[in-house]
Amino acid sequence: MKDYLSLIEAALDRGSAAFELPELFLRSMRYSLLSGGKRIRACLCLACCELMGGQAEDALPFAAALEMIHAYSLIHDDLPAMDNDDMRRGKPSSHKAFGEGNAILAGDGLLTMAMRLLCDVPGQETAKKAVFQGALEMAAGQSLDLNVTARDLPSLQRIHDLKTGALFRSACLSGAYRGGCDQAEAEKTRLFADKLGLLFQMTDDLLDRDKDAAENKLTYVTLLGTEETRRQIDSLRSDIHGILSEYSGEAAAYLAALTDRVAVRNV
Amino acid sequence: MKDYLSLIEAALDRGSAAFELPELFLRSMRYSLLSGGKRIRACLCLACCELMGGQAEDALPFAAALEMIHAYSLIHDDLPAMDNDDMRRGKPSSHKAFGEGNAILAGDGLLTMAMRLLCDVPGQETAKKAVFQGALEMAAGQSLDLNVTARDLPSLQRIHDLKTGALFRSACLSGAYRGGCDQAEAEKTRLFADKLGLLFQMTDDLLDRDKDAAENKLTYVTLLGTEETRRQIDSLRSDIHGILSEYSGEAAAYLAALTDRVAVRNV
Repeated sequence: MKDYLSLIEAALDRGSAAFELPELFLRSMRYSLLSGGKRIRACLCLACCELMGGQAEDALPFAAALEMIHAYSLIHDDLPAMDNDDMRRGKPSSHKAFGEGNAILAGDGLLTMAMRLLCDVPGQETAKKAVFQGALEMAAGQSLDLNVTARDLPSLQRIHDLKTGALFRSACLSGAYRGGCDQAEAEKTRLFADKLGLLFQMTDDLLDRDKDAAENKLTYVTLLGTEETRRQIDSLRSDIHGILSEYSGEAAAYLAALTDRVAVRNV
Repeated sequence: MKDYLSLIEAALDRGSAAFELPELFLRSMRYSLLSGGKRIRACLCLACCELMGGQAEDALPFAAALEMIHAYSLIHDDLPAMDNDDMRRGKPSSHKAFGEGNAILAGDGLLTMAMRLLCDVPGQETAKKAVFQGALEMAAGQSLDLNVTARDLPSLQRIHDLKTGALFRSACLSGAYRGGCDQAEAEKTRLFADKLGLLFQMTDDLLDRDKDAAENKLTYVTLLGTEETRRQIDSLRSDIHGILSEYSGEAAAYLAALTDRVAVRNV
């Protein structure tokens, strides 16, 4: 198994300290950015780069930018005007630790830092576009989620595809483009990302099903039931292994193992 | 006088409609983006591009991105957790019109759209970096402003230099780089931008001096007094005309006239 995590944590530590910024502003950004997490988007980016024959190190700025974008989205999602969550990863959420105004700015700062960081990477325009197309779709998905009234499967699928799926696509596609993939491989990468994003969401919904039921949330489990959700998870897992079977090498093995970890963590 | 404004309004209308996005999300972004305003940052970008021998049209994506960034900053600044302003340009501010959650997302969306838009411009990495360096400094300035305790001139200067000055630098530098300037011209452009940004802030402080005094706000007028602020405005205006005197042509004349409009609008 590749040691992507230590590469990523070092890149986030270094990248977020690369700009001269006021102490509290920087501290509030780093509080959320460097608070652990599985770094699944960053790992996907590096692995997809290697899968296409590139070096993981070359995709690191993209992986770091993706985690900054993910961290910003969590800070803003936790705000009282959104999901109103007081805790995140076992510690107070940003607005609880720094106040609402500073939390809004910490999110703004992380999103802007992601862009600023990628400005230092020459060229690679297709990979950059993949990152920010996903970031735009993610915000669109959060907007749909905030304002949704319909409680049906098409609504849930559209929200999920944007809110969670888009950044999975960004991660896999930016890595694959950075690794030098052609258009046919990009299409396969997109299919892989969509299936893995859906697998991730469905296992999340299974994990949180008691909490979600209490809050009457719209999830795959509440709409499809536990058994059908499990069946679709198995089917997605099998599809993903099928896609990966066309590739060999360490990165393919890593992505297959990651898929299994996502699938079984809570089923 | 160049007709930059109609170019800019068309680019903002077109640019913000270029992506397929949910109706409410897009409407909330366009509500703030297309609500008028002087477009001074966008005009500076186009004029500085022409000043360096480029075509205004080539700088349009940068000008549009700068106005999107400016609009996002106003939406977030107006939020209850920040300046808590209910009105903006004569109509309800974003959170009054759409609710706080949607206002946060409209700001996030506009910032992201600015990046996504510039992803469609090939190359021009120095100009892009100028835009996002300024956006990062602007958020840093807002953080300083939100948390400031010192009430002295160095604090005010630092806050202003980041919160307002940074995006003036972004506007002038991105336009100048897009127009093909060399490093020496970029330095002159930066000096011009810094002086114009300060002139803009000081005339703003003069305009709002009764309201600011009532709110006990830290401004150039409260720290320097009305007369000294006016004296410094005259001095900055003279310096800027000195810088512009090295250039000829329509863009230089436009920038000189714009400087005069900024200086006299409220003195």
